[in-house]
Amino acid sequence: MDRKTYSLIENYMVSRMEDSAHDKEHVYRVLYNALEIAKTEGDVDHDILITACLLHDIGRGEQLRDPSVCHALAGGDMAYAFLTGNGFDADFAEKVRHCIRSHRYRKSEPPQSIEAKILFDADKLDVAGALGIARTLVYRGTVGEPIYSLLPDGSVSDGENDTEPSFFKEYKFKLEKLCDKFYTQKGRELAQRRRSHAEEFYKALLSEVRESYEKGKAELSEHIDRKQRSV
Amino acid sequence: MDRKTYSLIENYMVSRMEDSAHDKEHVYRVLYNALEIAKTEGDVDHDILITACLLHDIGRGEQLRDPSVCHALAGGDMAYAFLTGNGFDADFAEKVRHCIRSHRYRKSEPPQSIEAKILFDADKLDVAGALGIARTLVYRGTVGEPIYSLLPDGSVSDGENDTEPSFFKEYKFKLEKLCDKFYTQKGRELAQRRRSHAEEFYKALLSEVRESYEKGKAELSEHIDRKQRSV
Repeated sequence: MDRKTYSLIENYMVSRMEDSAHDKEHVYRVLYNALEIAKTEGDVDHDILITACLLHDIGRGEQLRDPSVCHALAGGDMAYAFLTGNGFDADFAEKVRHCIRSHRYRKSEPPQSIEAKILFDADKLDVAGALGIARTLVYRGTVGEPIYSLLPDGSVSDGENDTEPSFFKEYKFKLEKLCDKFYTQKGRELAQRRRSHAEEFYKALLSEVRESYEKGKAELSEHIDRKQRSV
Repeated sequence: MDRKTYSLIENYMVSRMEDSAHDKEHVYRVLYNALEIAKTEGDVDHDILITACLLHDIGRGEQLRDPSVCHALAGGDMAYAFLTGNGFDADFAEKVRHCIRSHRYRKSEPPQSIEAKILFDADKLDVAGALGIARTLVYRGTVGEPIYSLLPDGSVSDGENDTEPSFFKEYKFKLEKLCDKFYTQKGRELAQRRRSHAEEFYKALLSEVRESYEKGKAELSEHIDRKQRSV
């Protein structure tokens, strides 16, 4: 890919990135992860891979405005329109669209091409360890969701069977099971190294939260109604 | 404190909490932490302590709308007005105001009373470990700040000398130095146990982010300009 083409695609990506959990630095990390993974895979078209990585999250803004929109499907179509409108041929644009459509974890269309599999793994790697924790927490702040929920008895839920959205629910639903989902050997290896960072953080956070509730709630009951209002 | 008084103050608190990093669950954790710390301190007025804990962050909304407002000073005045307006005497309201005014880490007015010192420690304990990491990241999402900044050479800053706001800058400025700031023995002990959770997460996150940039950037340069646009 020549520098001018790279800049054209990069500038379009930058113009589309909106929330800080999926900001442009996420895009660069995915691109860099993908190129690292690609070194151990044969027969990769680097132009397709680089283009798909740069544009994989351009549909995020659409999904943020309307949660019924899938950013992968919307982003694939946006990328196809952008590429064919800028002189790339339809076959190339279609291959890029497939990568983007199939990169989502909650996917209906699994990745088929090697470039799509590498993008999928590179994107999941960015959510596998401490980075996944950090980005998931930032996103909770962006959409105004809490870190955890309380069970009907007032104790702190670990997220496992939660119905309301929270960080712990997202950890249990997505982050904890992530390492089974990789398509490439290199992606799986890199993710395994990061996995313990996420697990240790989740356990530490749950224990800290529960410590506050378990010790203090009984103590509070003791001080309420023990004496009448004296002020 | 009787249940009716507790509910009056609690309801006012709930009506004032806005962003999810300082949501009402933070307030309850601080209250529970404070009651745990108070067990090892003599001569604590639990009515002052409970009231100050419940109301300590009610000025957050004001600070969020206008960053030049200090939520501790504004919240102290709001609490004083609320309490005197609801039949509490001026001396009690003034003692609560002192606790709230002096609870802030970036403080000009240090805590003097034992209740103020306990609130300060209970609030800092909620930011000492994994909870501090989680709340700081959620807050970055709320205000739209990034996780890290890049240095002029394109490498990832550890946050130490950053001028732009980011999670790493906040970690270096506030979270890393927090354990020296406690006033009570019990607060310091609880914080020390949580400190390693925060340190380990920060180190893991920095290493993951740097891994992506260090490996992938050189790889990208190789693929740009190596061949002319072939599509």
